Amino acid sequence: MGMPPSQKAIVPFVSVENMMKLVHSIGVEQTLIELAHYIEADFRRWEQFDKTPRVASHSPDGVIELMPTSDGHAYGFKYVNGHPKNTRAGLQTVTAFGVLSDVDSGYPMLITEMTLLTALRTAATSAMAAQRLAPPAATTMAMIGNGAQCEFQALAFKAVLGVTAVHLYDIDPAATAKAQRNLAGHGLSVTACRSPEHAMEGAQIITTCTADKQYATILTDNMVGAGVHINAIGGDCPGKTELHADILRRAEIFVEYPEQTRIEGEIQQLPDDYPVRELWRVVAGLEDGRASADQITLFDSVGFAIEDFSALRFVRDQIIERPFYEPLDLLADPDDPRDLFGMLQRATP
Amino acid sequence: MGMPPSQKAIVPFVSVENMMKLVHSIGVEQTLIELAHYIEADFRRWEQFDKTPRVASHSPDGVIELMPTSDGHAYGFKYVNGHPKNTRAGLQTVTAFGVLSDVDSGYPMLITEMTLLTALRTAATSAMAAQRLAPPAATTMAMIGNGAQCEFQALAFKAVLGVTAVHLYDIDPAATAKAQRNLAGHGLSVTACRSPEHAMEGAQIITTCTADKQYATILTDNMVGAGVHINAIGGDCPGKTELHADILRRAEIFVEYPEQTRIEGEIQQLPDDYPVRELWRVVAGLEDGRASADQITLFDSVGFAIEDFSALRFVRDQIIERPFYEPLDLLADPDDPRDLFGMLQRATP
Repeated sequence: MGMPPSQKAIVPFVSVENMMKLVHSIGVEQTLIELAHYIEADFRRWEQFDKTPRVASHSPDGVIELMPTSDGHAYGFKYVNGHPKNTRAGLQTVTAFGVLSDVDSGYPMLITEMTLLTALRTAATSAMAAQRLAPPAATTMAMIGNGAQCEFQALAFKAVLGVTAVHLYDIDPAATAKAQRNLAGHGLSVTACRSPEHAMEGAQIITTCTADKQYATILTDNMVGAGVHINAIGGDCPGKTELHADILRRAEIFVEYPEQTRIEGEIQQLPDDYPVRELWRVVAGLEDGRASADQITLFDSVGFAIEDFSALRFVRDQIIERPFYEPLDLLADPDDPRDLFGMLQRATP
Repeated sequence: MGMPPSQKAIVPFVSVENMMKLVHSIGVEQTLIELAHYIEADFRRWEQFDKTPRVASHSPDGVIELMPTSDGHAYGFKYVNGHPKNTRAGLQTVTAFGVLSDVDSGYPMLITEMTLLTALRTAATSAMAAQRLAPPAATTMAMIGNGAQCEFQALAFKAVLGVTAVHLYDIDPAATAKAQRNLAGHGLSVTACRSPEHAMEGAQIITTCTADKQYATILTDNMVGAGVHINAIGGDCPGKTELHADILRRAEIFVEYPEQTRIEGEIQQLPDDYPVRELWRVVAGLEDGRASADQITLFDSVGFAIEDFSALRFVRDQIIERPFYEPLDLLADPDDPRDLFGMLQRATP
């Protein structure tokens, strides 16, 4: 078959197994801390990025999306699907992979699984936002919804923010038991609660990450006291919300990219011109985050391409010194770029 | 590291080396014939496809594009860059890879190199179009521009259309010599020509595939006689054309997707409402192709996502019975979809 592919033809690939090895090699909490730093750095230079809404292909049972962005030096995109009925077939609701490329040459530099990486970056983003929005010295977080994202959120808030206690609630007690089991031994006080109200007792932070597809009301207005920070993760596509609109009207609302959040986030329940604040402006020091001890702050998170870009940068930097990737022979690389056919012909068995 | 990934986590990957093995296993010309059939079948059902313009990220030296489409059952996209200056660094101007996914689950079913595959599908599309547009019993093709696409075009027109002779011309004689060398022994009469006019003598088909970035005039009006078919490949992005506008005005123009071709193709030189015909309507039998022996027909080809979709379908079907792929551990697949963290935790070394 001729010569082996040259280095120009090779793209590093991080499989699920290698992503797990990478995370364990760094440590889960340290990974979340470093991811939060990468995301923070990219939020600070938000205006340098090409920002476009996701490119979505909808079907009766779900959606497949491409989320591209670029800072002018690197280009990244994530492929991600959302198929709520998948769990019934033993499949993931959301799977993802991503690519980081060199803008100057257009050549891919990294292909990586992003199902795990998205779970990690989502939690790191939440914790990074809470550093600006949660009450100072918050120690206790209520977690409503104990699915796939739950433990990542708990550990991110512990590692990045110093949360020491989490109160778990899910309509399915098996989900709560799963999260409680997984979080044992991580240095958090973990309490399984019998109701959302019970979970919220004494909590300065409320994280909602349920998987309800339809308009739901996980939190009603009377459940939310003054001064809390709400980290709303689960309302992330049209028709999928978790909070009663009255809570939104009492809160100072922070979002990633308003054009996208108005379609996908909790604020899809509000008028299109309802005032919201952009998180990046707080991170960049252009605006204050939490203004008073009584304020209810809300991070209406739907996930944005720049967070994936940060995560891709993180992985690329990590695998420079760690062997957790495989070389993928992805790019045709003839000796003479005009001689693609000659390369094929010389490979004749 | 726990259990190996399950079959649900595995996506077949076709590397450049395996793509070359696959093509040789089928035969280059047979591959082009079969690809033309797949493309023809998808053009016949054109209206079933989601069609969106490419999602392009432009930079000073090039462009990175994502080209998605779906027929409601499968979803495909191609990543492709275009960086004319790359050749100076010994890199390809265009590299590409693609993904085919199952719409019902959102799970990727195939990842494949598409640099070679795009060269093959472009040539197959040209030949499939020429079956409807070229003069009957055309035997001779002039090829202006003898770069990476040249030999694929020559063999596609031989295999699909029955062309027996090609006349080569390039401003760089080394490119012509390369193509002549590569085409030796493939059963074509190959003539290296000293001028475009010389190449066009006796040719019923004219293929232009030069790499000029700027508005160029590879063909002027007086060079093109009545009754020929022009297969214009090289004019494929804003600012890049090969034909004098007067030729366009004399020709019956066929395009893939008018919304895209008016931006990227030869017809960017014409008013936005200049009448053009959609190739798929001819393929589907809704309209006639060539109308008379005197007519000049022009296929203003820029490449469209549906052709890549056809090529992805072709590769997926081929690897069912041929071992030319590697299993890629791309998708996280926990035993319980809600227990992504548990999967990570159980992989602790």
